[in-house]
Amino acid sequence: MARIVMKFGGTSMAGTERIRRVANIVRKQQAAGHEVAVVVSAMAGETDRLVTFCREANPLYDPAEYDVVVASGEQVTSGLLALTLQAMGCKARSWLGWQLPVHTEGAHAKARVRDIESNALLASMAEGKIAVIPGFQGLSDDGRVTTLGRGGSDTSAVAVAAAIHADRCDIYTDVDGVYTTDPRIVARARKQKYVTYEEMLELASVGAKVLQTRSVSLAMKEGVRVQVLSSFIDDDAPPADNLPGTMIVSDEEMEGLEMERQLVTGIAHDKNEAKVILTRVPDKPGAVAHIFTPLADASINVDMIIQNVGREKGETDVTFTVPQADLARTQALLEAKRDEIGFNRVITDSKVAKISVVGVGMKSHAGVAATMFRALAERGINVQAISTSEIKVSVLIDEDETELAVRVLHTAYGLDAPDVAA
Amino acid sequence: MARIVMKFGGTSMAGTERIRRVANIVRKQQAAGHEVAVVVSAMAGETDRLVTFCREANPLYDPAEYDVVVASGEQVTSGLLALTLQAMGCKARSWLGWQLPVHTEGAHAKARVRDIESNALLASMAEGKIAVIPGFQGLSDDGRVTTLGRGGSDTSAVAVAAAIHADRCDIYTDVDGVYTTDPRIVARARKQKYVTYEEMLELASVGAKVLQTRSVSLAMKEGVRVQVLSSFIDDDAPPADNLPGTMIVSDEEMEGLEMERQLVTGIAHDKNEAKVILTRVPDKPGAVAHIFTPLADASINVDMIIQNVGREKGETDVTFTVPQADLARTQALLEAKRDEIGFNRVITDSKVAKISVVGVGMKSHAGVAATMFRALAERGINVQAISTSEIKVSVLIDEDETELAVRVLHTAYGLDAPDVAA
Repeated sequence: MARIVMKFGGTSMAGTERIRRVANIVRKQQAAGHEVAVVVSAMAGETDRLVTFCREANPLYDPAEYDVVVASGEQVTSGLLALTLQAMGCKARSWLGWQLPVHTEGAHAKARVRDIESNALLASMAEGKIAVIPGFQGLSDDGRVTTLGRGGSDTSAVAVAAAIHADRCDIYTDVDGVYTTDPRIVARARKQKYVTYEEMLELASVGAKVLQTRSVSLAMKEGVRVQVLSSFIDDDAPPADNLPGTMIVSDEEMEGLEMERQLVTGIAHDKNEAKVILTRVPDKPGAVAHIFTPLADASINVDMIIQNVGREKGETDVTFTVPQADLARTQALLEAKRDEIGFNRVITDSKVAKISVVGVGMKSHAGVAATMFRALAERGINVQAISTSEIKVSVLIDEDETELAVRVLHTAYGLDAPDVAA
Repeated sequence: MARIVMKFGGTSMAGTERIRRVANIVRKQQAAGHEVAVVVSAMAGETDRLVTFCREANPLYDPAEYDVVVASGEQVTSGLLALTLQAMGCKARSWLGWQLPVHTEGAHAKARVRDIESNALLASMAEGKIAVIPGFQGLSDDGRVTTLGRGGSDTSAVAVAAAIHADRCDIYTDVDGVYTTDPRIVARARKQKYVTYEEMLELASVGAKVLQTRSVSLAMKEGVRVQVLSSFIDDDAPPADNLPGTMIVSDEEMEGLEMERQLVTGIAHDKNEAKVILTRVPDKPGAVAHIFTPLADASINVDMIIQNVGREKGETDVTFTVPQADLARTQALLEAKRDEIGFNRVITDSKVAKISVVGVGMKSHAGVAATMFRALAERGINVQAISTSEIKVSVLIDEDETELAVRVLHTAYGLDAPDVAA
């Protein structure tokens, strides 16, 4: 007998019929002799609908009330999955974030899980009750609803798996594993049997929407074995123990596994960034701190930063990217600090995309970045900004060129599958 | 300064624009110098949508999980109203049922409020924060979400008003008060400045759907001053202190208020009853108990009952009414007891309407019923059954004659407004 956490995303929970398919997968996992906890997302589209309501109500919304609104989507699906499992003859009950509770800390709308009380949960699971837990939501120390940020249900699942010492955390998604790139863009993309936590981290952080970044960090930190699986499997498929997905493993485990290690594991793209340019910022010590301190205080993640010398002496243009969702708040914060920072204009552009090549293999190989710039230049794709890490190189380009860039790079790094028609 | 609870129903909360209108009404109430708590329903249609999901998931649903699902609708609107108030510059926060908490007892999906902890709420309101409270929801002693049954938000509002000793509980609805009868039927219906709790109870129970019955009982028990108001008022209207609605008051207060007390306060109609006739029931002691005991055991509310002497000696016809929704179950139960009861036939008719005249004034005046029967007889309207209480006389008539009967009675009791074109 194993203890297994299963997580289902919004597409899998979108409506009565799909929830029934999920319940069937869960039922079989339990019937295979395991203790099962299920973490669920809101129905696809529901969180967007709720976020839209919040924006309409108040463009500069109070994240504490935003959390109250958006946490409701997962509350609905957790109750519905419990009801559906009961209809199949399983024992099941929902455990809301404040009921367990899932203690969180940090800012509303992007809270972090501190710990999860698991005694009542484990006792209930030991009685054969399937635990259904809404992802995404938690409880702050002052007793308010919190949420973990978009895609936070993956993190909820890994946190639950860590709290109850689960043998495995199976993340069911609308893809059946981690590919070398988005198969909707590149038909020759290949599914990978294994990727490392670090690779997965970089892929997730640059928009390969299989797992949320924080969930991978948490899994790495807590040593949770994570498997990515498709939720669109036949009703008569075997339990997940025997399904082919992608297993996320440690560097050490990977070295023992793979014969021919690829230099680059994957190409990711992300259209959710927006570019901000501040023109004619005084080119003096501390000027940049004036820009980024208020953004950091507001928990806005600034990613790529470049500084260009301006036309006038002693002035500079500062370019950086923020998540599109934070663009309005970023503009408001900057305008409020206009005198302090001393810029001339704020120019914004949300029609940009970030393209990244990722691979632990590049740690020991030079030339990965050079290959990237050459391949893009040959197709006339202009690079607006660059950022790098140990196992990743990212560039910012025009959003319209996203698919072209991904295809060009997939070929340039030799990732195309040999026997699939392009 | 007064302390005021305001309650807005689903029609008023249906979408961003309407919530903004609600927020504007609330804002003005606070600006008039009052401490304000607002109780809100889910967006119109949302609870139905959630109930449908539950039924699809599991026709014999677990009410504990049903509550988890359906309570989410009010959670959404409470957060959105708090956000909208903040956008207008007001301080506001939401207080969910489990946060206050609203302690409830009794069955899930039809829980009753036991008490509401008000210290934190009052402290927050004293700081000038508008409290936004989702109606309908509470917390059971074992820490699970409960709901109060459909329409329960009125009860939530009155319970909050009682808990914080509010000076007034304003219920905003899609009508602007309690009328002498349905204005869609009688153009000359008049809005009443005052009705008593008892009158409101009778009006609510016989189909004047302004307030949920339980909320009126609770207001009467707790002595909460309830005002019924329209939420569809101009944005530049004055605060509700000066708006003309209907105030629900005690008998004693009413006596001090009105110079010319109307004998009859209102004419209500209800098309949701069905008539059942059992023919040739043995006319002997205990026969009637055989009929009504199984119905009572099945929680079917039997209303009007009459017994006619049948054509044969020693036999009688028994006529009574039940809610239309329970008619099929009633027939099945009676057929199952056919031998025991000893009737000949079950005849049913759901094309009936119950017309009621209500008024505390009739306690001290004879002749109210006589006026009713005479007025109906003059227009050839046949009375099929009669029931009375201290402050109400109801008759059962052909459903087709509903509007005619209401108009005839409205005139007969002198309720027609003088200066509105008929």
